Amino acid sequence: MDTSKKTLIVFSGDLDRAIAAFIIATGAAAMGDEVTMFFTFWGLNILRKPHAPRHHKDLLQGLFGAMMPRGSLHLGLSRMNFWGLGPRMMRSVMRQHNVMSLEELMASAREQGVKLIACKMSMDLLGFSEDELIDGLDYVGVATYLGEADQASVNLFV
Amino acid sequence: MDTSKKTLIVFSGDLDRAIAAFIIATGAAAMGDEVTMFFTFWGLNILRKPHAPRHHKDLLQGLFGAMMPRGSLHLGLSRMNFWGLGPRMMRSVMRQHNVMSLEELMASAREQGVKLIACKMSMDLLGFSEDELIDGLDYVGVATYLGEADQASVNLFV
Amino acid sequence: MDTSKKTLIVFSGDLDRAIAAFIIATGAAAMGDEVTMFFTFWGLNILRKPHAPRHHKDLLQGLFGAMMPRGSLHLGLSRMNFWGLGPRMMRSVMRQHNVMSLEELMASAREQGVKLIACKMSMDLLGFSEDELIDGLDYVGVATYLGEADQASVNLFV
Repeated sequence: MDTSKKTLIVFSGDLDRAIAAFIIATGAAAMGDEVTMFFTFWGLNILRKPHAPRHHKDLLQGLFGAMMPRGSLHLGLSRMNFWGLGPRMMRSVMRQHNVMSLEELMASAREQGVKLIACKMSMDLLGFSEDELIDGLDYVGVATYLGEADQASVNLFV
Repeated sequence: MDTSKKTLIVFSGDLDRAIAAFIIATGAAAMGDEVTMFFTFWGLNILRKPHAPRHHKDLLQGLFGAMMPRGSLHLGLSRMNFWGLGPRMMRSVMRQHNVMSLEELMASAREQGVKLIACKMSMDLLGFSEDELIDGLDYVGVATYLGEADQASVNLFV
Repeated sequence: MDTSKKTLIVFSGDLDRAIAAFIIATGAAAMGDEVTMFFTFWGLNILRKPHAPRHHKDLLQGLFGAMMPRGSLHLGLSRMNFWGLGPRMMRSVMRQHNVMSLEELMASAREQGVKLIACKMSMDLLGFSEDELIDGLDYVGVATYLGEADQASVNLFV
């Protein structure tokens, strides 16, 4: 085991949980840790490009894709969402307190070398192709996650 | 510590989180790991038999039991449930992509020797007797979980 | 790594998840483990005093504060909340089965030396001052959590 390794499974696509995940990830990276974030299910929405090219999809995937948030800027809160007012309030308060926005946290994570991984199987299920997600991701399966987690000192499911 | 051991606490009774938990569990088991899944609170619904014998219960437990999903086939999604349409869509997409259904994942987990444990205290609270849950479970308390988790390299709360 | 150390991030402010977190924490403490609970985001609501002094807050924080539950007695369930009926049912069933209430679990955790930590940044965001939260907490940032988690054998995100 290597105490300088951490992994996070980001299953949730809620703004609040995404912020928590990236604060942990960037905090660990700032301390010199090697961090891997594995995005699966709704967590993939965090990685969507707002204006992605459209592909032919079957009906169900098209429906999922159309109804889910298109990228980090469109995520809702897990609590007190109030039809989109909650996320605005949260973002506004974060600005006032000079806390980095989710988008700044994501940029900081990448600058610090946090590995962002998209779960291939979830992409298939939700109908996301690689060019619909932000650039610079790895695309892997659960075996790769497990390999990383085995060597890490902290593994969280968010 | 033994890097070939993993534990999952399955607290959630959502279809999507149940699928994620069993994909991780079966993935780890396929790599030769010893996996223990500890089902607690709503997670116990995943293990309910659809047509279980009825027992005399007090009013509150009867209410809980009547209103919660009766087994894996009746679980909802944590997001985009749409009064039961979401789970059907998810299951349909999984079939199209040759991903094992939750029920197949559960069968595979058992074949691979994944240990399925039901939290005794949660069973008491929600009023589930042993014959209302699928066969072949262990029934233990939190101390047993903690003992297993101490020896595992990966411990997740789903 | 020290197998006698455990950490929990309590992100959720749901009654059911809070109970699960404190059952794990007190169970581990009863086995002689050193346990740290790190409360962040909605999890801070668990630690609110019911009748805290009011401070001047900006509008958004005031709104958040007014709409979120004021302490452990006012938490809702993540599922089957039914406008507050669910938590009453859960508490009633717990009493019938001689399971400690959340408040008793919290008291027991403190008696057993479980370290309760409030995330400073989340306090800023949600506008909680120290005297609005129960006494005897530590107030730290993510770096402190990561330092503890690195040395622990079990780290969960609830």
